[in-house]
Amino acid sequence: MSTVGKSLYSRALRGFSTSGYNYTKLSSSHIDYFRSILNNNEVITNSDEVQPYNEDWTKKYHGKSELVLKPNSTDKISKILKFCNDNSLAVVPQGGNTGLVGGGVPVFDEIILSLRNLNKIEDFNVNTGVLTCQAGCILEELNNYLRDHSYEVPLDLGAKGSCHIGGNIATHAGGIHFVKYGPLRANILGLEVVLANGNILNLSSTVRKDNTGFDLKQLFIGSEGALGIITRANINCLRLDKYSRVAFIECRSFKEVLKIHNMAKSLLGRNLSAVEFMDRNAYQSVVENIPNVHKPFEMPKAEDMEVSYALVEIAGSQPLDDIEEQFFSALDQEKLLDRCVIGENVAQTQAIWQIRESIATASAHMGSFLIYDFSLDINEWETFLVDMRKKVGPLGFVKGYGHVGDGNIHVNVIPYNKQDMEKVVNLIEPYYFAWLKEKRGSISAEHGIGFMKANKMHYAKDENVIEYLKQIKAAFDPKNILNPKKILPYK
Amino acid sequence: MSTVGKSLYSRALRGFSTSGYNYTKLSSSHIDYFRSILNNNEVITNSDEVQPYNEDWTKKYHGKSELVLKPNSTDKISKILKFCNDNSLAVVPQGGNTGLVGGGVPVFDEIILSLRNLNKIEDFNVNTGVLTCQAGCILEELNNYLRDHSYEVPLDLGAKGSCHIGGNIATHAGGIHFVKYGPLRANILGLEVVLANGNILNLSSTVRKDNTGFDLKQLFIGSEGALGIITRANINCLRLDKYSRVAFIECRSFKEVLKIHNMAKSLLGRNLSAVEFMDRNAYQSVVENIPNVHKPFEMPKAEDMEVSYALVEIAGSQPLDDIEEQFFSALDQEKLLDRCVIGENVAQTQAIWQIRESIATASAHMGSFLIYDFSLDINEWETFLVDMRKKVGPLGFVKGYGHVGDGNIHVNVIPYNKQDMEKVVNLIEPYYFAWLKEKRGSISAEHGIGFMKANKMHYAKDENVIEYLKQIKAAFDPKNILNPKKILPYK
Repeated sequence: MSTVGKSLYSRALRGFSTSGYNYTKLSSSHIDYFRSILNNNEVITNSDEVQPYNEDWTKKYHGKSELVLKPNSTDKISKILKFCNDNSLAVVPQGGNTGLVGGGVPVFDEIILSLRNLNKIEDFNVNTGVLTCQAGCILEELNNYLRDHSYEVPLDLGAKGSCHIGGNIATHAGGIHFVKYGPLRANILGLEVVLANGNILNLSSTVRKDNTGFDLKQLFIGSEGALGIITRANINCLRLDKYSRVAFIECRSFKEVLKIHNMAKSLLGRNLSAVEFMDRNAYQSVVENIPNVHKPFEMPKAEDMEVSYALVEIAGSQPLDDIEEQFFSALDQEKLLDRCVIGENVAQTQAIWQIRESIATASAHMGSFLIYDFSLDINEWETFLVDMRKKVGPLGFVKGYGHVGDGNIHVNVIPYNKQDMEKVVNLIEPYYFAWLKEKRGSISAEHGIGFMKANKMHYAKDENVIEYLKQIKAAFDPKNILNPKKILPYK
Repeated sequence: MSTVGKSLYSRALRGFSTSGYNYTKLSSSHIDYFRSILNNNEVITNSDEVQPYNEDWTKKYHGKSELVLKPNSTDKISKILKFCNDNSLAVVPQGGNTGLVGGGVPVFDEIILSLRNLNKIEDFNVNTGVLTCQAGCILEELNNYLRDHSYEVPLDLGAKGSCHIGGNIATHAGGIHFVKYGPLRANILGLEVVLANGNILNLSSTVRKDNTGFDLKQLFIGSEGALGIITRANINCLRLDKYSRVAFIECRSFKEVLKIHNMAKSLLGRNLSAVEFMDRNAYQSVVENIPNVHKPFEMPKAEDMEVSYALVEIAGSQPLDDIEEQFFSALDQEKLLDRCVIGENVAQTQAIWQIRESIATASAHMGSFLIYDFSLDINEWETFLVDMRKKVGPLGFVKGYGHVGDGNIHVNVIPYNKQDMEKVVNLIEPYYFAWLKEKRGSISAEHGIGFMKANKMHYAKDENVIEYLKQIKAAFDPKNILNPKKILPYK
């Protein structure tokens, strides 16, 4: 869906006009106002310093913002937004800038509101496991803090070292342990949100059950900054697992992956922590492009496209010996145990996970590429991948991987020739979006809509649903100053 | 919060006026229209037959509706609502009529729209565990169906024999296994909803991850029928646990209950399925009022108010021997094992659960009573109960029980003298609502707001939050025909 690396598209984006929206052009008097309410280091106007905020990490989206604001309090954010709303200045909220669909960077000259300085851990209740923190806290830093209390945030994803919890909530991030944690929204107990007009909504709560009115905070979870800016969260954290084990298995076919998934579900129950998949090409891309990566299996021949890999994680608060024995006996009966490597300690476990987590990085090493993020019945994955490889044919390298445990498949397509990028896009889009709609899948499982898929929303939602989404946007942000041209279709 | 049994309040409710709302009085021509689009048995006008729909099961709320419609399709509901909206006829949707806050019965002469005939199980995917069913399916019947596939709906509550899944979703029901399942909304993948104007919103989805726009369906989960009528749901069902064990423990004090809860959390991890509590009075009420109930412990003396009871359920897909041994050894070390009964088979397990599940029924046997439903830090429960017993003093019998595992406490107060009901209410309300607000608890953990607490919402939400809730209501139901005077404050 999004094109990673410098693509043919980036030029088009640079010149993006603001036509259709009546925004005010940023002036020095506006900046004077911001300086009057913020500290010096919270206002960035130097173009070199602004530049990294204008670009997403995939280098695909390039905004033209001239101002970054990095307020360190909710009150300051409230004042900024009230002023922007009164003066019709567009704003893009930005967390760790790790998104894949252009949701967190400007697409024209919006003011960038960075949450980086809003990064305090405010409270952790060891009895209830409820963490209260500001939106700019980095996911990994929260987990570093919680580890001392034997707790963890119920979310895990590759970008954990730089993504912000506020951005995770605003995009309803999924990740590699969805099987274990369930959806993030199930563990977000409360939020503080600043609306476009500067109004601060106190939706905070530290209790697990609270049935008092429509659950307004749910709207902000996954709203991609278009309804309000999340400034604080109350999170129901989970006890750290004391025991865990990772197995990585080479399969002769995707059918074996499905078999392993079924065995894992029925034998491991609640101790099943993750089931991941990668195809032959995904494995090859990692082996060939990631330095010093662990290579537990010989690379299969190019024609052995059916070879697939499954990663299974077992975890729990009790020793797992019995449950592991049953699972590995089952693997053995299916003649899979001799093609299985097991992480025996932390280092080995991390080495196995690194193979899985390096797939997107490996694609980036190979050149400009397209990254897709679909929800699709796992029984359809094989047919889908075979079909896509056929469709792309000699134009590009297609690799499939993803979260078997929750039905979320990723596909990367790397054109052999950069000039074919647009041709490849046209082969894939909108063909597979329409196909997914028919199959009742999703065109965005976890990456979100952002700028990239805003005008593809009709493949996800009926027209009358989109109308209500627009009404909700209008209720919270009538002047459309918050993250314009994102998440909702635009002209 | 709600007064169960015939109370002093019921008279006041009978005469409830519609002033302030410009609804049309139901006429024979309206009924003619309904007859023209519905089958004969879907239109009830006989007052004797209408009567049970006018009253909630606690006999507290008494509507004056003259018409019950029981359509068997979404299209019929769409036509009904369009007509009601065009003609300004108020409507109350009704599921199994098992609510405790007057949310599902008329409070004046609204048309009752019963979902009873919308009760088909439409699909179950054994690979993914996703159930698709209509809103009027009874929870227990869904589980009877799913049992053959070794699955269950991730919700369990006392009313399971009559409550509808649509009502469960519309009220975001909690229940006795929240520790095991998490919040219901985490497992609702999709909904079909009919809006006030008859518009059918297709929010259905059978995939677990779907980040495509603001998650509109979340608004309807817990909206108590005031934003739209849920007609169909896609539910992520869970594998049935193959093994489970229930322990019921007599504790010398509430501190021992907290200790057991801590041990259970840290030793049982994901195999912890429920931790429930009841105080001495709750146990007494069951023992004295429920025929043939299992009585594992002698009744403590009246002055032994500190005696408390804990119920712990352990469950999993694997044999629990090791984990049980550890937990029971820990109980033994705390000298609790000799005051512990363990369900060794299905019958014994059910007998133990019956004690817990009969508490509200036992209150009803004792007379008119008040039932409260709070979220409150479990470390505050003891102080709170002692304080409330002191406050009510000689006027009534106070019993406390609830879900320790998720912080949801219930209190029943049964006045010794029916005439003191109002006096007792005034001692408790709004004192504890204000106290809970200060303590960051919730005035409704799982029962919802309904009619009962609609004008108490300021104890739950800030004024500016309530304003946005009203805006959302206005966006979906501008003529306020759906469940008026429920969930939102009214005049």
